[in-house]
Amino acid sequence: MSPRIVRTVAELRAALAPHRASSIGFVPTMGALHEGHLSLLRAARDENAVVVLSIFVNPTQFGESADLDAYPRTEASDVALAGGAGTDLIFAPSVGEMYPAGFATTVSVGGAITGTLEGALRGRSHFDGVATVVSKLLLAVQPDRAYFGAKDAQQVVVVRRMVADLGIPVEIITCPTSRDADGLARSSRNTRLSPTERELAAAIPRSLRAAQDAFASGIRDPRRLAATVREHLVAAELEPEYVEVVDADSLEPIAQVASPALLALAVRVGPVRLIDNVVLAPGVTDPIPLAPTDRSHP
Amino acid sequence: MSPRIVRTVAELRAALAPHRASSIGFVPTMGALHEGHLSLLRAARDENAVVVLSIFVNPTQFGESADLDAYPRTEASDVALAGGAGTDLIFAPSVGEMYPAGFATTVSVGGAITGTLEGALRGRSHFDGVATVVSKLLLAVQPDRAYFGAKDAQQVVVVRRMVADLGIPVEIITCPTSRDADGLARSSRNTRLSPTERELAAAIPRSLRAAQDAFASGIRDPRRLAATVREHLVAAELEPEYVEVVDADSLEPIAQVASPALLALAVRVGPVRLIDNVVLAPGVTDPIPLAPTDRSHP
Repeated sequence: MSPRIVRTVAELRAALAPHRASSIGFVPTMGALHEGHLSLLRAARDENAVVVLSIFVNPTQFGESADLDAYPRTEASDVALAGGAGTDLIFAPSVGEMYPAGFATTVSVGGAITGTLEGALRGRSHFDGVATVVSKLLLAVQPDRAYFGAKDAQQVVVVRRMVADLGIPVEIITCPTSRDADGLARSSRNTRLSPTERELAAAIPRSLRAAQDAFASGIRDPRRLAATVREHLVAAELEPEYVEVVDADSLEPIAQVASPALLALAVRVGPVRLIDNVVLAPGVTDPIPLAPTDRSHP
Repeated sequence: MSPRIVRTVAELRAALAPHRASSIGFVPTMGALHEGHLSLLRAARDENAVVVLSIFVNPTQFGESADLDAYPRTEASDVALAGGAGTDLIFAPSVGEMYPAGFATTVSVGGAITGTLEGALRGRSHFDGVATVVSKLLLAVQPDRAYFGAKDAQQVVVVRRMVADLGIPVEIITCPTSRDADGLARSSRNTRLSPTERELAAAIPRSLRAAQDAFASGIRDPRRLAATVREHLVAAELEPEYVEVVDADSLEPIAQVASPALLALAVRVGPVRLIDNVVLAPGVTDPIPLAPTDRSHP
């Protein structure tokens, strides 16, 4: 059955009111749904009586207006895909519904969590935009559980911090990064890659897998692990914006990987900026699967 | 019956869980309860099945640590007074419960609302502290209605803006400023005035009443109305920090009082900084009552 679409917070609350006694699972997205989003919806479907999806391309988290303008908007197919994954209700507000005239409030997470990685490149205002819109969405839906993908690792750390600090009553659940057969993390932005760029982009998961393999072989020096990634990217003629290994919770720099660390990168491929990451944790191995044809690349 | 006191958000939520189906009224305070707070509690008692009071001297909204240190802390008498006013539950957390290690989130209201009046004098960080703690308290209690005093007029505008912008599901209710017989607005800080200073402070409501009278006589020029207030304060040898007439909703400067305006002031009396205000609205008269003995002052 096709999920119902609501456009306002008032309609959303009215639609959810009869279901407050049951469990509500929520997947916030910017639309352009792909298999990664569907895996979040299926996780929500498994664990909750009601599944709510939001589709909102949030202007306040885009630094470059060209990126905002180019962001794919595919509502009709999103609705069909979401229905297929068991979504009950879709909240798809306008920009005016989320940020009416006079809107003046920002939710901001400070410190290393937002000053490093994407925050260093895109500016903290990116995460102000994320924290503000996610707090608004969580307060609008008031779900029991909200589902985020591990691909946006720093975003998940920011959201977890914000939810804990403000005391928003919701459980944040992180789901594994969904990947194509050659290991490339699924992203709505991948649709903007040419076939050649798409092939080049496969160097990203290969580079992360090489770091995982190095870590598995005992290397604990963050600089050596990052250098391994850089070498693979440069060999594929990709220029990384950053490759960093930081503490997985605080995102602070580390001298050695002794507890779970986040190896995160951003790289431009043609017109598109892609991010990806793996968690390196002593005693844990969860290597990125790479399809055999791609393992033959340098 | 003496109200129950809880110290943690977990205890608070557990205590309120059985009452979620009924209505919850909430009065956030910094303790040192006086008649003004009790009038808020009585309003909450009239309109809700359950009344919750919070007592938390919030360090993040104090600019001067001397002011924070000097802020009166009188929990035992607060509990007795709150019980007498019909309070069911008191939430009195520690600073560590509200701001545990690693806390990094700020809720900030921008624009004229926080840049003028108290925001210009104390800095926007004062209202960042207010917006952050009030959002945390509202999310912890999840009341149907929260009650604020009109004395802290700018605070109420900030809270209303923040609640609307984030979509926190609560009704904000503003109660009239509670005043002593001579018109002085009740404030926990009044206890720090010497008898002589207390007498001097009576010039504050007299000055506001003079502006109300001028407004009633047809004066609509914000500068003339503010000048009337300044003259009364200076005649009493009080030096105002500011006296301003601004739009009551946006707090933006106005050229003439054509819609509800806020006449707000801050003045130092001895060691204490006091604030007060009146709303000037065409067609509305609600003059500050001044006890006869005090009307004889210059």
